[in-house]
This record gives sequence, C-alpha cells and structure tokens, in this order.
Amino acid sequence: MTDPAEPSRADATRARLLEAAVAAFSERGFHGTTTRDIAAAAGMSPAALYVHHRSKEELLHLISRAGHERTLGMVREGIASSDDPAEQLRHVVHDFAAHHARDHTSARIVNYELAALSPDHLREITALRQQIDHEMRDLVERGVAAGRFDTPDPRMAAVALLSLGIDIARWFRDDGGWTPEDVASRYVEMALRIVGLRP
Amino acid sequence: MTDPAEPSRADATRARLLEAAVAAFSERGFHGTTTRDIAAAAGMSPAALYVHHRSKEELLHLISRAGHERTLGMVREGIASSDDPAEQLRHVVHDFAAHHARDHTSARIVNYELAALSPDHLREITALRQQIDHEMRDLVERGVAAGRFDTPDPRMAAVALLSLGIDIARWFRDDGGWTPEDVASRYVEMALRIVGLRP
Repeated sequence: MTDPAEPSRADATRARLLEAAVAAFSERGFHGTTTRDIAAAAGMSPAALYVHHRSKEELLHLISRAGHERTLGMVREGIASSDDPAEQLRHVVHDFAAHHARDHTSARIVNYELAALSPDHLREITALRQQIDHEMRDLVERGVAAGRFDTPDPRMAAVALLSLGIDIARWFRDDGGWTPEDVASRYVEMALRIVGLRP
Repeated sequence: MTDPAEPSRADATRARLLEAAVAAFSERGFHGTTTRDIAAAAGMSPAALYVHHRSKEELLHLISRAGHERTLGMVREGIASSDDPAEQLRHVVHDFAAHHARDHTSARIVNYELAALSPDHLREITALRQQIDHEMRDLVERGVAAGRFDTPDPRMAAVALLSLGIDIARWFRDDGGWTPEDVASRYVEMALRIVGLRP
C-alpha cells in the first residue's frame, strides 16, 4: 500500500529539478544555463527533464511564481498581525529583510531574471509584484493618515522600503559577519526612520 | 594633416563596440550575449571585433572598470565638497542616486554581472567597490563622531545607503513618472533620516 500523504516519486523529481534549476540559474544566469546543465545537476538525462517540464523557462516561471506568492503572503501576514501601522511595518520589514538575506540565492533569481520570462508569465509575475507594491504603499499611507508616520512622499518611501529589502539578496553573504536576524532588526529601525515614526 | 585632439577612427570604433556591448548585455545578460551579437549591433564583423577586443569578457571589464572608477570619483568629490558630514552625505547620496537612475542601463551591468568577470578582473573591481564602501562607512562614522549623526550601527547604515542607491538601477524606468532628480532629492531626505541627522 502507498501512503497518499507521502509525496509521489514524480513530485520528488520535480522538486529536485527545481532545486537544480535554482542552483544553475544563480551560478550562470538564466541565459547561460542549458536544460542539459539542470538535468545533469539533478542526476537525470535531458530527455527525462522534458517529461516533467517543457522548458527551462517553465522552471524559471515556477521558481518565480512560488517566490512572489510567498513574499506577498508574508507581507499580508505582517499587515494582519496588528492594527497599528508601525507594528505592521516592523513585522513586514523584519520578515522581508530576513527572507532576502536567508534565501538570497533564490531571491536573486526571483528578482533579477524577470526579463527571461515569457510575455504571459511576465504579466502574471508583474501582477504579483504590483500587489506587493500596493500593500506596502497602502501601509505607509495608512500610517501617515493615522498620524503615526510623517513622510513627505509615502509612495517613494514605500518604493525605498521594498528596494532596501530586495537588494539584500544582492549584497548579503552567508560568511559576511551578519546573520539574517542582524540585518532584519537593523532594517526595522531604519524603516521606521524612513517613514518618520512619531513617538 | 590630422588633428591630434580628434579621436582616432580606432577610438571611435572601440567606443561604438562598448556602446553595443552595454546594449546587448543589458538585453540578454552577459552569458546570453555572443561576440557576434555585439559585432552586429556595432555594424561590424566578429573578426573586426577581435581586432579591438580579445573577448566579450574584456568588454565587460572595460564597462565595469569605467563605471566603478566614475562612481568612486563621484563619491570622493561629494566628500570633498564640504567640511560638514551632513553636507557631504547630501552631495554623495544625491549624485549616487541620480546616476543610478539616469544611467540605469549601464549601472545594471556594472552591478549585476560581476560574476562573469575573470578572477583577475573581479579582484580589481572588488578593490574599487571596497574603496566605495569604505568612503561611505568613513563618512557615516565621521558624522557620528562629530555629533551630527545618530545611528546605532554606522556600518549597517552605510551598507543600506549604498544599497538604496544601487537598487535604483533595477527599479527605475524612464517612463515611470519620476525624474532622476525627483528620486535623488527624496533619497537625500531619506538618507539623512537613516543616519539620524541632528538639527
């Protein structure tokens, strides 16, 4: 008898392929990677890869969609965590920064390989990014409206807050002397300064 | 007679190749670009390209070195512009942000294709980046020592300030509704908040 809760062998193979694709894209970029590279890293033949995925673009799309959905969920969870915009911002910036430090390898692909997506996939991912942007902008605007934040340009502040978090994936190094938690807690302090938190 | 001040035809050709390389790298990434693409964009044969440059890596190195030297010069000029660390920071952040918005195409290559450099070239470029990092860190530390800035972690603040500027090259769009000057002036305000400028 097989346990229905146990992932099927096909699921495990797909997961192994996604992991191999993340490693290959992060090392050589999407355009520098061949499906052969990915198949080899996953320990299978190129023909076996095509049983599971039609193209390397499909792999990129799966990685990108999972990354963006996870980030959007994280942002919404942070916002739902409190009624106070300052607490919401603390929560969102902490988790966003920690994620981009901890998962910098996949976050780099998610953020820097958008141009390699097919037009349809890019539209889908752009819509997810816009939802993340809107959540952050609404959060800053709510804070200003509630008298908790004081910033002359909530829209630009929201762009800068997300930008700071995303760029962690570019500069963070596992052996750089800072843990993801170090970065996250300092970034919370800086975020509250950027929006002009009132005591 | 030829005018010695006039750039030679070889110089003009090299400049055209660099411009074509920036366009090609920014469109398809370094690994996705062939020397044939670059030669075609510059209106010459691949063989003619090799007369001027040994490889596409050499082109990337020239683009990267020019970009980093220009940025380091800009940072040092901003620091030399005043005795007051707050004025220095205003100047540096303004010019750094405006540059990454205005020249976002080349700034993206300069910042996101480092892994494609040869080991020797990467060492050279890394040394330039470290000088930029040190200038920014020293500036924030001088401001704290002078009682002008108030930040619990000058090193992390300096990383965040450069990170904010660099990431502009990723998100800025010429048709996005903001001019490079809009971004630069808002980023100066946010930078002064990050370092905790004292009135």
